[in-house]
Amino acid sequence: MSPRGRPAGPSDARERILAAARAEFAAKGYDKASLRGIARVAEVDPSLVHHYFEGKEQVFVAAMRLPFDPADALPRILAGNPDGLGERVTRFFLGVWARPESREPFIALLSAATSSPAAAGMLREFVTGSLLARVAEASPIAGLPDRELRVEAAVAQLLGVALLRHVIGVEPIASAPEEDVVALIAPALQRHLSGE
Amino acid sequence: MSPRGRPAGPSDARERILAAARAEFAAKGYDKASLRGIARVAEVDPSLVHHYFEGKEQVFVAAMRLPFDPADALPRILAGNPDGLGERVTRFFLGVWARPESREPFIALLSAATSSPAAAGMLREFVTGSLLARVAEASPIAGLPDRELRVEAAVAQLLGVALLRHVIGVEPIASAPEEDVVALIAPALQRHLSGE
Repeated sequence: MSPRGRPAGPSDARERILAAARAEFAAKGYDKASLRGIARVAEVDPSLVHHYFEGKEQVFVAAMRLPFDPADALPRILAGNPDGLGERVTRFFLGVWARPESREPFIALLSAATSSPAAAGMLREFVTGSLLARVAEASPIAGLPDRELRVEAAVAQLLGVALLRHVIGVEPIASAPEEDVVALIAPALQRHLSGE
Repeated sequence: MSPRGRPAGPSDARERILAAARAEFAAKGYDKASLRGIARVAEVDPSLVHHYFEGKEQVFVAAMRLPFDPADALPRILAGNPDGLGERVTRFFLGVWARPESREPFIALLSAATSSPAAAGMLREFVTGSLLARVAEASPIAGLPDRELRVEAAVAQLLGVALLRHVIGVEPIASAPEEDVVALIAPALQRHLSGE
């Protein structure tokens, strides 16, 4: 039995912030949505949003139930031996998509993007600001004039693999062991990301 | 002004066959749908289906309004100098996606596949039977043990580019000249398809 009336505990405030964030991101896109606007819709003080979340990126990750925070995961993947970058990125990405509970938010976002320009815009702004910018500034491609296109070619390769493997379910890639997919895809990623 | 009652001209029969085909493919999947079953739903003689269409593949292409028939396009692309295969495939694919009227049926299929297992199954069976099988048997990879995975890695690369360029609309790839995308993607396709 739940108590009558609107519960007012801290987890309720957090949930109201996330519901407001989903509405604001959907209505305004990622770039134009603001923490202040989200607080207003959630009817909470803006300081409470900052209490729960570091910034807009973290609100988006939580609101869309994304399984990792790019601000946290990407620096770890991008650090280390440049020769192993393609393999590290491939393994991280395949690992995220291997678990149903972590791939489902991405499939939901993609599904929305294929049918709604507003959802496509929201996804585009988040991918550009949170993902592409960070990877494009990473060694070993930071100095290349076409570094952004190269990162997008790598993202395209991974996104297509995820679609064939987990959404369309085309064999043999849908059932192939992760090691076989790494052997196939990591060299392609390495070439895109190393400027070869 | 259109005449009253159900028109019975030849173009009407063709349209009824296509409507029946869409219903049958959606209900049974690509492999289990049959020309005989489609004729039954359309209430036409099976010979009429064969009069309009060469086979099930061509009914599917017309019913889904796909802008090319793999049985016709693929042999042309796969023939010729093996060193130029990656570039020919990339140019053909980018050309199809460049025109809104030819990419929209693919986006609709993809959108359906991300939200409906039945639609995903239909797309999977068509892609496997019509596309992957033909390309995997083509030189120069026909003899390789991992030829099907290699074709899928190539399809994944192209599909991901199409998503970033035309569905999510991520810059700079969304506005990049076709030549820049060919320069970026054709070498990756060539490596996947040549077994390098």
